[in-house]
Amino acid sequence: MSRRINFINPFGTTVYDSLIHETLSHYAMEGTTLDITHLEGCPSDMDYFYPKHFVENALYAAIQDAEAAGYDAVICGCCYDPGVRVGRELTNMPIIGPMEASLQLLAYHGRTAVIVADHVKACSLMKDNARLSGMEDLIVGYDVIDWYVRDMVNDTDAVAADVIEVSRRAVEKTGAEAVILNCTIISASYQKYLMKGGKPADVPVLNPNLMALMMAETTAHLRSKGALQLSRAAFYAQPHDDHFRKVSEITRKAWDATRPVRDQFF
Amino acid sequence: MSRRINFINPFGTTVYDSLIHETLSHYAMEGTTLDITHLEGCPSDMDYFYPKHFVENALYAAIQDAEAAGYDAVICGCCYDPGVRVGRELTNMPIIGPMEASLQLLAYHGRTAVIVADHVKACSLMKDNARLSGMEDLIVGYDVIDWYVRDMVNDTDAVAADVIEVSRRAVEKTGAEAVILNCTIISASYQKYLMKGGKPADVPVLNPNLMALMMAETTAHLRSKGALQLSRAAFYAQPHDDHFRKVSEITRKAWDATRPVRDQFF
Amino acid sequence: MSRRINFINPFGTTVYDSLIHETLSHYAMEGTTLDITHLEGCPSDMDYFYPKHFVENALYAAIQDAEAAGYDAVICGCCYDPGVRVGRELTNMPIIGPMEASLQLLAYHGRTAVIVADHVKACSLMKDNARLSGMEDLIVGYDVIDWYVRDMVNDTDAVAADVIEVSRRAVEKTGAEAVILNCTIISASYQKYLMKGGKPADVPVLNPNLMALMMAETTAHLRSKGALQLSRAAFYAQPHDDHFRKVSEITRKAWDATRPVRDQFF
Amino acid sequence: MSRRINFINPFGTTVYDSLIHETLSHYAMEGTTLDITHLEGCPSDMDYFYPKHFVENALYAAIQDAEAAGYDAVICGCCYDPGVRVGRELTNMPIIGPMEASLQLLAYHGRTAVIVADHVKACSLMKDNARLSGMEDLIVGYDVIDWYVRDMVNDTDAVAADVIEVSRRAVEKTGAEAVILNCTIISASYQKYLMKGGKPADVPVLNPNLMALMMAETTAHLRSKGALQLSRAAFYAQPHDDHFRKVSEITRKAWDATRPVRDQFF
Amino acid sequence: MSRRINFINPFGTTVYDSLIHETLSHYAMEGTTLDITHLEGCPSDMDYFYPKHFVENALYAAIQDAEAAGYDAVICGCCYDPGVRVGRELTNMPIIGPMEASLQLLAYHGRTAVIVADHVKACSLMKDNARLSGMEDLIVGYDVIDWYVRDMVNDTDAVAADVIEVSRRAVEKTGAEAVILNCTIISASYQKYLMKGGKPADVPVLNPNLMALMMAETTAHLRSKGALQLSRAAFYAQPHDDHFRKVSEITRKAWDATRPVRDQFF
Amino acid sequence: MSRRINFINPFGTTVYDSLIHETLSHYAMEGTTLDITHLEGCPSDMDYFYPKHFVENALYAAIQDAEAAGYDAVICGCCYDPGVRVGRELTNMPIIGPMEASLQLLAYHGRTAVIVADHVKACSLMKDNARLSGMEDLIVGYDVIDWYVRDMVNDTDAVAADVIEVSRRAVEKTGAEAVILNCTIISASYQKYLMKGGKPADVPVLNPNLMALMMAETTAHLRSKGALQLSRAAFYAQPHDDHFRKVSEITRKAWDATRPVRDQFF
Repeated sequence: MSRRINFINPFGTTVYDSLIHETLSHYAMEGTTLDITHLEGCPSDMDYFYPKHFVENALYAAIQDAEAAGYDAVICGCCYDPGVRVGRELTNMPIIGPMEASLQLLAYHGRTAVIVADHVKACSLMKDNARLSGMEDLIVGYDVIDWYVRDMVNDTDAVAADVIEVSRRAVEKTGAEAVILNCTIISASYQKYLMKGGKPADVPVLNPNLMALMMAETTAHLRSKGALQLSRAAFYAQPHDDHFRKVSEITRKAWDATRPVRDQFF
Repeated sequence: MSRRINFINPFGTTVYDSLIHETLSHYAMEGTTLDITHLEGCPSDMDYFYPKHFVENALYAAIQDAEAAGYDAVICGCCYDPGVRVGRELTNMPIIGPMEASLQLLAYHGRTAVIVADHVKACSLMKDNARLSGMEDLIVGYDVIDWYVRDMVNDTDAVAADVIEVSRRAVEKTGAEAVILNCTIISASYQKYLMKGGKPADVPVLNPNLMALMMAETTAHLRSKGALQLSRAAFYAQPHDDHFRKVSEITRKAWDATRPVRDQFF
Repeated sequence: MSRRINFINPFGTTVYDSLIHETLSHYAMEGTTLDITHLEGCPSDMDYFYPKHFVENALYAAIQDAEAAGYDAVICGCCYDPGVRVGRELTNMPIIGPMEASLQLLAYHGRTAVIVADHVKACSLMKDNARLSGMEDLIVGYDVIDWYVRDMVNDTDAVAADVIEVSRRAVEKTGAEAVILNCTIISASYQKYLMKGGKPADVPVLNPNLMALMMAETTAHLRSKGALQLSRAAFYAQPHDDHFRKVSEITRKAWDATRPVRDQFF
Repeated sequence: MSRRINFINPFGTTVYDSLIHETLSHYAMEGTTLDITHLEGCPSDMDYFYPKHFVENALYAAIQDAEAAGYDAVICGCCYDPGVRVGRELTNMPIIGPMEASLQLLAYHGRTAVIVADHVKACSLMKDNARLSGMEDLIVGYDVIDWYVRDMVNDTDAVAADVIEVSRRAVEKTGAEAVILNCTIISASYQKYLMKGGKPADVPVLNPNLMALMMAETTAHLRSKGALQLSRAAFYAQPHDDHFRKVSEITRKAWDATRPVRDQFF
Repeated sequence: MSRRINFINPFGTTVYDSLIHETLSHYAMEGTTLDITHLEGCPSDMDYFYPKHFVENALYAAIQDAEAAGYDAVICGCCYDPGVRVGRELTNMPIIGPMEASLQLLAYHGRTAVIVADHVKACSLMKDNARLSGMEDLIVGYDVIDWYVRDMVNDTDAVAADVIEVSRRAVEKTGAEAVILNCTIISASYQKYLMKGGKPADVPVLNPNLMALMMAETTAHLRSKGALQLSRAAFYAQPHDDHFRKVSEITRKAWDATRPVRDQFF
Repeated sequence: MSRRINFINPFGTTVYDSLIHETLSHYAMEGTTLDITHLEGCPSDMDYFYPKHFVENALYAAIQDAEAAGYDAVICGCCYDPGVRVGRELTNMPIIGPMEASLQLLAYHGRTAVIVADHVKACSLMKDNARLSGMEDLIVGYDVIDWYVRDMVNDTDAVAADVIEVSRRAVEKTGAEAVILNCTIISASYQKYLMKGGKPADVPVLNPNLMALMMAETTAHLRSKGALQLSRAAFYAQPHDDHFRKVSEITRKAWDATRPVRDQFF
């Protein structure tokens, strides 16, 4: 019973891959192969919604490729949970969003949480996502550390220090029992700090990367046992005729045609 | 005080343009120039979320082009309200979504509504959009007529007949005071039927195309008076440095590179 | 395509008429005749609910008279939205409430708002009205400037200064993207300050008088096109027999009999 | 420890007084004097909102008079809970609304209820009132028996039969544990039927008249013990200066001037 | 028309009985016999959920015994409302929870309340109970005075002082119109302070012991009139065959067998 | 990396142990030892809340014993999620509730679910639990098959047939994307039917036993990696002084004293 999981950093850069690898890999269950990859020809961040939307096209291609390569589950490695819902339309392979996974595993850390995000714009989207998840009642507040991901990798310790300070403030204000760090890079920075022996925050802090890994392993296991079926009756209905299949094929081909220009992102 | 409004059918076909034109144009206010256009090199529908997501890239380009061409407002002509939120990040020009506009004008037709959509998958997304709009309490039920848009244009009278029957059923079941036809083509089909002298449904029926036009005129007018300012403090924050501006430029250029392949959609 | 709109200040004094006129009239669309009137024989404010309820009787009479005089829409010029719902029972002419109109047009200014009202008692009623509107999810907080309308007209600049300060405080506390000034006289005071060249608040501020005007123009236009129908199936059902029609007639006559005493309000 | 309670039928007719008296009086606690009165010079019903609003003025006068006459509590005897909130602004004497009282005592009859009202328009207002009460979560559905109060008194047995049938249907559809008969006259008709030996419905049925009486006795008792204080800090703030006191006085005087015309209601 | 009410302190100590007696008895209505008792062989508090759950078994036994002894209603004398819902399964005698009763009578003190509880853990459970009551919308905030009940009896004046200070702070922060002291011993301490002539808080403060007494008297009266029926159709369904009756009997017998060990609680 | 999980059937009988074993064991991950046990000296069901409450005491003892025996996680094997919240107060070992686990894993089967429970009384409690879980928005309806668990084991095929029929009906009525079988024995019966080659329902059906096992494995794994910390700051605060520790010890001892009587349950 082995499983292969693809954690995709939806960023057009290698700099986050090693950070995720060093802070996540040792948590994998026995039998899990965890491959951490990134998107080729994409911006190094998705802080604004116009490039975010564009990059999600690359993520759909990567999901299709991961399925073809035999992966058992894909983690869309950003707390926006980018591509998760469209991805589930595309494949039966489990598609995991780190924020959704964190909400699903929250109860084992505390009955309520405050979300600590990178900046105000991101935080607004988190609220939308919490609402759509059907689990927004679990969240009693939101706060931000005011960083962009591209700066975080340059000083992960400073990020960790801000996590501790903002978590303290947010818990005091909201009475939350736990903190969800709603940015994969914030969370990896904080995890790295802990692994270097840093003193943890006083409150349970959920690492969405780890929560996503747990859900990827669980759902991949369920699927390997024939016990995972995603409803195709409504939201996730799939095309069932030639017209739509052809539309899908051309869509993918058109996307691939963007590659030469996308290489200019570096 | 004149204004130019661009109603964009987010479909890669001309067949809906005339239908919208004949059922909407006469409603425009004095001083309004209403141009109805469609997207080049796109599928003829966006029923599945993978192509829908792809097509939204074309819509962002069209919004940028509409702004450059001097339009005062854009209507994203589909009740999924595609591209509306990212579009608002891109421009200060008002971007109108037909479903959101219908919810905003509902109170003048009735205190509650039932949404009648094309098919179950679409209906699921409508529920998400209602929730994100902050106005979901206005909606007391959902129903579908079970049609795809590409079939509707072939028999608009049959669509209208189903609108009347499903509206009756949905109102009886939910007690809704009004019906919102949450598909621009359903709505145009029903409007065409009315214009031919067809007997209207027994309940107020909102035409999202018309609701969108009203909101486009209103917001364009407010903007021309210097009285419209969209907050850039949170969700709609815009890039403010070279990095993000460059990312945006390459994104657009990459999109344009898809055109040759996209022409295969026909 | 012209339309006549009656903005009724539900106060028994002329002092607000000119303030509304000078801060609102230039926003009217081409073809709009905007008449700003007040109620005869009424108190100069409706801060307490007992006189407010009484004054609403005068407003129903004024609505009936406005319809008889050929107006195309009526704005009930107070953010309590007084008389709006009963008014809609009385007539097919669109009846506009400034607070409801502000919620309907909020999305073009920001995704959420904080309401800034005159005083705590008023604010309590605003919460009720937001809840009944079905749009309360749009409001993330409430604050007050602690003024009575009858004092505001004596120092509109001081009102504007408090608007700016309380808006800043309220946005900081709630994270709202926009501010709705939920008092027509607060809003006119702030608008007057802006028109004199005052520096605006840092956040989009909605003027309910203007929002109401926009909705009046839009709905009057829709009605002139035969495209506005208010459901009479439930909340707004109208009397359909002699008994109820007679009750209505006597009600109006009885109200008119109060006039001699009401003239003592000054 | 005695108390005097005034149950006011907000209808300009004596026909309901005896019905309420015969179905309610025997439930009064020891020490309670229960006087059932009606409004002079008012319509015989308040089914439409325009006359309802007008009649509420009469109710405020009646509340003021009841206080002057030494009553310890007033029941506004209609399930619209007419005049209750403004009445509480006017006086420290407890003002009881039958619908609100039913929601408050529901838990002792069942965990949820379905509301059975007279007709659809009334039912719409019940939903608003449930929402404003802060207890709407207790209500799992609404249904109507389709009667006007003025017809009910002519055939109370037929009303009771419809109560039983609609209650059965509503409980089956909603799974409610109890029924609240949200019309004082429906409820009195059903109670009369029971007192004649009629077979009760299969589900607990709350009689709002009785629930109101219980709350009147309880709150009057609390007040007599000095243990009832209604907050004047927000919604129920009372005038505290000459201006507002004078406005209130003239309001009452103006109302009294309507009497000659109001006598035409018969 | 007399009634006997049993207020059960769910604590294995006599120290609270006299405190409740001296602060509550004089509020009883004419005809009410109020007996204040405690549980034998139980801990002196139920601050943690494991002993709380255990003690509730003793409460069920006490409820059964109270019914056998001819009581007309039982008050479970702790604001956790311990045993209330299971108790209602066991008997037709009204079972009153002080917190639920406070929410039911809130409207006569103010439209909203803040709950002031003993400590954070208790407060978490209050939130759950408010949610399950279907009345959580009435509560706009929560705060704590940070005391354990076993310390309160040693310095009731200090408790009262903290009540006043925390109430002031909580109302300022939340805008609540009233305060519910969600601990029977906090409330008795504050009541004792008032009876000694202490200056009351500036805001209406609800005493859950008193609210519970009012509801006990009201429901006992209703039942004595044959007008109280608790639905057995769903949540409160009762066993109807030998199997379940036998299970219930053994359960009671097994509980009684714990008595020798339970006497070690002192 | 091995883990030991104790699935406790909270029933005083061996009959369910083998059913759960045969339908669940083969789903365990590599490294998992799954022990299925039952409670000694307890009723064979917990359909009524009085015995249910009593049996939960046995479950707390079993949880304490499981921890002492070195288990890494406990599943409270009933969809009431009995003992889960108090159990989490008692131990740091993960305590899993099948219903909560099903809600947590729902998103991978569908966006919404209908709950299919055993009977109406059980269903009422499910609604409470869904509300307290903070995930009730995921549930769009409830239905029942009308069976008691003690009858199910006698005809598991008939249970499975009813599951299929009621699931079909419930999905048609509610539009749910998936079904959660909210009873461990219903679910095992249906699973047994599938394992014998029975035709599955047309909709994804979640097996709470399996969902619980997945969450037990995941949380046990997290804990073994030092990555699971349950907040002790609020709801799950633990005793921290001698008084409370002694109360806990006597509680356990008192419970154990019930054993001789409890053996009469058979």
